[in-house]
Amino acid sequence: MSHETLPPWDSHPPRSPAPPQRGYDHAAQPQGIAGRHPPVVTPLNADFTVGYPSFTRVIEHLIAGGVHGLFFLGSTSEVVFHDEAIRNKILAHAVEITAGRLPVLAGVVDPTTDRVIGHAKRAATLGVDGVVVTAPFYTRTSQAETVEHFRYAVDASPVPVIAYDLPVSVHTKLARDTITTLAREGAIAGLKDSSGDTGGLRYVIADMADRPEFFCMTGAELDVDGAMLMGAHGVVPGLGNVEPSGYVRLYQAARQGNWAVARTEQARLCRLFEIVWCGVPRTWGGASGVGGFKTAMRAMGLIATNTMARPQRSLNVEESARVEAIFLGVGLL
Amino acid sequence: MSHETLPPWDSHPPRSPAPPQRGYDHAAQPQGIAGRHPPVVTPLNADFTVGYPSFTRVIEHLIAGGVHGLFFLGSTSEVVFHDEAIRNKILAHAVEITAGRLPVLAGVVDPTTDRVIGHAKRAATLGVDGVVVTAPFYTRTSQAETVEHFRYAVDASPVPVIAYDLPVSVHTKLARDTITTLAREGAIAGLKDSSGDTGGLRYVIADMADRPEFFCMTGAELDVDGAMLMGAHGVVPGLGNVEPSGYVRLYQAARQGNWAVARTEQARLCRLFEIVWCGVPRTWGGASGVGGFKTAMRAMGLIATNTMARPQRSLNVEESARVEAIFLGVGLL
Amino acid sequence: MSHETLPPWDSHPPRSPAPPQRGYDHAAQPQGIAGRHPPVVTPLNADFTVGYPSFTRVIEHLIAGGVHGLFFLGSTSEVVFHDEAIRNKILAHAVEITAGRLPVLAGVVDPTTDRVIGHAKRAATLGVDGVVVTAPFYTRTSQAETVEHFRYAVDASPVPVIAYDLPVSVHTKLARDTITTLAREGAIAGLKDSSGDTGGLRYVIADMADRPEFFCMTGAELDVDGAMLMGAHGVVPGLGNVEPSGYVRLYQAARQGNWAVARTEQARLCRLFEIVWCGVPRTWGGASGVGGFKTAMRAMGLIATNTMARPQRSLNVEESARVEAIFLGVGLL
Amino acid sequence: MSHETLPPWDSHPPRSPAPPQRGYDHAAQPQGIAGRHPPVVTPLNADFTVGYPSFTRVIEHLIAGGVHGLFFLGSTSEVVFHDEAIRNKILAHAVEITAGRLPVLAGVVDPTTDRVIGHAKRAATLGVDGVVVTAPFYTRTSQAETVEHFRYAVDASPVPVIAYDLPVSVHTKLARDTITTLAREGAIAGLKDSSGDTGGLRYVIADMADRPEFFCMTGAELDVDGAMLMGAHGVVPGLGNVEPSGYVRLYQAARQGNWAVARTEQARLCRLFEIVWCGVPRTWGGASGVGGFKTAMRAMGLIATNTMARPQRSLNVEESARVEAIFLGVGLL
Repeated sequence: MSHETLPPWDSHPPRSPAPPQRGYDHAAQPQGIAGRHPPVVTPLNADFTVGYPSFTRVIEHLIAGGVHGLFFLGSTSEVVFHDEAIRNKILAHAVEITAGRLPVLAGVVDPTTDRVIGHAKRAATLGVDGVVVTAPFYTRTSQAETVEHFRYAVDASPVPVIAYDLPVSVHTKLARDTITTLAREGAIAGLKDSSGDTGGLRYVIADMADRPEFFCMTGAELDVDGAMLMGAHGVVPGLGNVEPSGYVRLYQAARQGNWAVARTEQARLCRLFEIVWCGVPRTWGGASGVGGFKTAMRAMGLIATNTMARPQRSLNVEESARVEAIFLGVGLL
Repeated sequence: MSHETLPPWDSHPPRSPAPPQRGYDHAAQPQGIAGRHPPVVTPLNADFTVGYPSFTRVIEHLIAGGVHGLFFLGSTSEVVFHDEAIRNKILAHAVEITAGRLPVLAGVVDPTTDRVIGHAKRAATLGVDGVVVTAPFYTRTSQAETVEHFRYAVDASPVPVIAYDLPVSVHTKLARDTITTLAREGAIAGLKDSSGDTGGLRYVIADMADRPEFFCMTGAELDVDGAMLMGAHGVVPGLGNVEPSGYVRLYQAARQGNWAVARTEQARLCRLFEIVWCGVPRTWGGASGVGGFKTAMRAMGLIATNTMARPQRSLNVEESARVEAIFLGVGLL
Repeated sequence: MSHETLPPWDSHPPRSPAPPQRGYDHAAQPQGIAGRHPPVVTPLNADFTVGYPSFTRVIEHLIAGGVHGLFFLGSTSEVVFHDEAIRNKILAHAVEITAGRLPVLAGVVDPTTDRVIGHAKRAATLGVDGVVVTAPFYTRTSQAETVEHFRYAVDASPVPVIAYDLPVSVHTKLARDTITTLAREGAIAGLKDSSGDTGGLRYVIADMADRPEFFCMTGAELDVDGAMLMGAHGVVPGLGNVEPSGYVRLYQAARQGNWAVARTEQARLCRLFEIVWCGVPRTWGGASGVGGFKTAMRAMGLIATNTMARPQRSLNVEESARVEAIFLGVGLL
Repeated sequence: MSHETLPPWDSHPPRSPAPPQRGYDHAAQPQGIAGRHPPVVTPLNADFTVGYPSFTRVIEHLIAGGVHGLFFLGSTSEVVFHDEAIRNKILAHAVEITAGRLPVLAGVVDPTTDRVIGHAKRAATLGVDGVVVTAPFYTRTSQAETVEHFRYAVDASPVPVIAYDLPVSVHTKLARDTITTLAREGAIAGLKDSSGDTGGLRYVIADMADRPEFFCMTGAELDVDGAMLMGAHGVVPGLGNVEPSGYVRLYQAARQGNWAVARTEQARLCRLFEIVWCGVPRTWGGASGVGGFKTAMRAMGLIATNTMARPQRSLNVEESARVEAIFLGVGLL
């Protein structure tokens, strides 16, 4: 059943056949699903430039931690703070360091279609295996227009497109019909769901059960066991920057149906996740989240500073001490 | 760790000791937890009066279906459409028909504290085992004031108080600290969470892990398996009016750790749940939901009409046919 | 032009002719328009009971201040904190003290239609001249259902019904079509607009320009000059409890087209209005607003306490000092 | 009085002195205030490229219509659909055609600080007189960080910075303290308020009454008379693309205190404004608004097509007929 009937739409030119789904034939991969793709943070120097030696260490830390792929320039990377030139340099470095060991995804986040397409073309040239596209933002866009947005992006992108449902940032939700329409016509290769709408994700998974090549990944660090129980194929956890091996254990336990083990690991990761609320004010959901990750990674010796892209506040000494206390509390450090 | 530090609050008089947790010592109950408590619909006649013969059939249907308790005058009952006299009559009938076979909960839903207390006292006199209290609504209320709201209600209520987190109706979320503060001081006996905030529920369950007498029930029909995997003690499914035995199977499978069985049953109930979107417009979340339940129950021969409390629209013939088609699709009717 | 076409609605029984618009034939009144109707606060004793001697003083203060009518049991009165018995007593006292010197309006605020009708009938019996009705709340209600809500209320109410647009409390906006449909069929006698939607109010006023018997009053204390410039017929200012004579000057200047005088008086009242942000936290919009009014009225010797209905916080000594400082700053006290 | 105390902020480097307020010394201008600055639409060809001949006609139409300045790359221009290269070309054309006859403002709209600065530097090089900056979007940003955002932009911009309050697009409101802090330290030269918060704008105007060089312009097409009555210095009306002379009459009448004339003209413009709701669905606030302007301008022979930037829908034949009917209704065409 359909929640909403999409209005007829006749302005779109005939679509070319769906592009080959390179790099993300998850059914053919060893793990059989989309797996774990942490959204990699972008370490900064104190002068707000990218800290490449730190960035290299983060990539190696994640690969050593057993992830299945790497997602650069996602929201956790502070992507919208970086202009085109910086994004290119970040991706070039990411592809060079990864060196084909794992698939590489790139967020191509900007307010509107043609700018997204520009990012996607550049990312493809730099060697990424897929791009991740949100709904338009700043402008108000109907669901029918959003379907067109993705169709245009898919038509122009040399690599597969994954839809990114992130209403907290773009302020619209991808409707169930929007996602399944795009999935059934072979436009989008998969979904990263960070909407928090558990029921909605469940319906998309059920609607697409006959199309195993379409994969759904959850961005909800706090509910990976629940999402995998409902059939999600992978996880894109920001907290995975800090503790990739925890998500490996959680993911593998869930894949094997060891739900008691999965639940225990999930509970431990939830305690660790509290590092995102150490900024002041605690209820402020802004830079504090990524700031918590960066502060933890600095404490682990992975990155040189916990600097956030300006004008965001970095966690100060007192706030950083809270992050470290949580770390100690869960047996890390 | 705490999200928010509650401001000091000195106006509240010293609280009496926590009232004995009668009727809801879930640790002592056979099933060991809070279990399944469907929020019972209130059948109406075509003239908008309560249809008591239908109501009796619904209660017997639910008891026969294997529920652990009955929750009257919840949101699904259209509680806020009923004035004090009608609520009293509904509860008196409910207690009489239930006749002690199961615990009975009553929603005591109204905008503010003293009116909630009035409902709670009347409900207790009528013989219910516990009352379910939301945050204040219409008025804007801080979290500190909301804590006081519950304390006053608990002090005055002769029976245990269960907090009801329902931001879609009251437009504020019960903060984690609000819930755990009230739980730790013995004020509230449990939580019914219909907030959709999966991560938030998980933190409350974890925070209260050392207090097994405090129970958490989810109101999310679409995520019972996930909620139970995270440790929820029970479920309050509106759809349980229609298909109580499905929730029995789901609940028992989850309790026994048969997560594959639970997931399969959950998927079937999700398909059935689509009856809530058969009203026009489909995206309208109002009376359509309960209207779908009532239409299904009429098709099952349980209730005489699918009339909704005025001014809500009842489902018409065409919409009702859609409900019945969904029923046939999942093998019911 | 119409924003939204209302769906056909066939469940409503034939409406009786529009009730006679008693008491609010504003075209026939001396001032020629709806005028100034402050929403009267309800003074409380320290034990939360109504302080009737204070209440009497407030009424006399307002009449002496030159208002055109009195609006009891509006949001400023903390109406939803009072149950049926208390509301009856408040209205009886109000009618008795007013003694026909001015028209009396009563808010009949509760979540749903039949409960509103019950309040309206009781209010009419007690002698009020009109009742003020909001959209349903707690429950989700479409605009078509909201139209029905008002029709049912009008059919049952012995006195004229005024629509109250207050999305901050009921969480839905009355659509332009909803208001004008009800106005054109003679259902509602007028509108109290507290929506903050300046453009929307302007369209309603323009749409009804050929129906001078339909009146529009603004609840926006901070924009009375602007609202009257666009053609509003009256004002319902909560701050008018504190300073009725300021609103008399503002209103009269606007009526006479002395816009420079109106603007100067409006600016002074805006400075005074800052008493609503003296509670802690300052950004909290809840009890702080009415609490500021009550604190100011206590300082003026009008009422005995600044007690707010529980569980709301009353302003403490420090916060009260801030209120008084603002008072001094604008030349009062 | 202050709504919110800004937290101490120590990461910002010492600010250079406020840049000279070139081009916007509105106190020195003939009209004595900021005046009328329509946000100019960007005409497109059917293939989505910019239609420069049409663009030239629009600029000449506006100058002939008596505006005080031109605001390019505002939201009405579909700015976020245009990448850096296209924006540069648009501005170069705008500056060339305007040829110093009027001041030129440029929107520098992108999610974050450094990207805004990049746009501002390029715009200044191209010869604009000032830049218009929103709060950050996509990312969540506290008010304290938003203050820093503007400070960084002002420090780096060669031309004056005007703050643009547009919560419908960026999903945060500029707090009163944020605006007045930036204004008092000489950072921002003025405010364009499109927040719809009438009371908030009034407080900012009052707070800055001793600083006549700081100007406040309203973006509310439907409330220019009200905004000017409260002391706003100018207006930035999207509808001014269509009917600049109406806003000239309205503005001049308000400036001269002829409020009855202003009100009549405002009422006529409100009827005309209904062209923004001719798209389907009518309640959809997206491309329909600018689409209505473009359709009207096409009917007037100003621009060649009513094409909207993709993926937005352009108004079709039937919708365009509705736009034209409204035009006829107000005596245009």
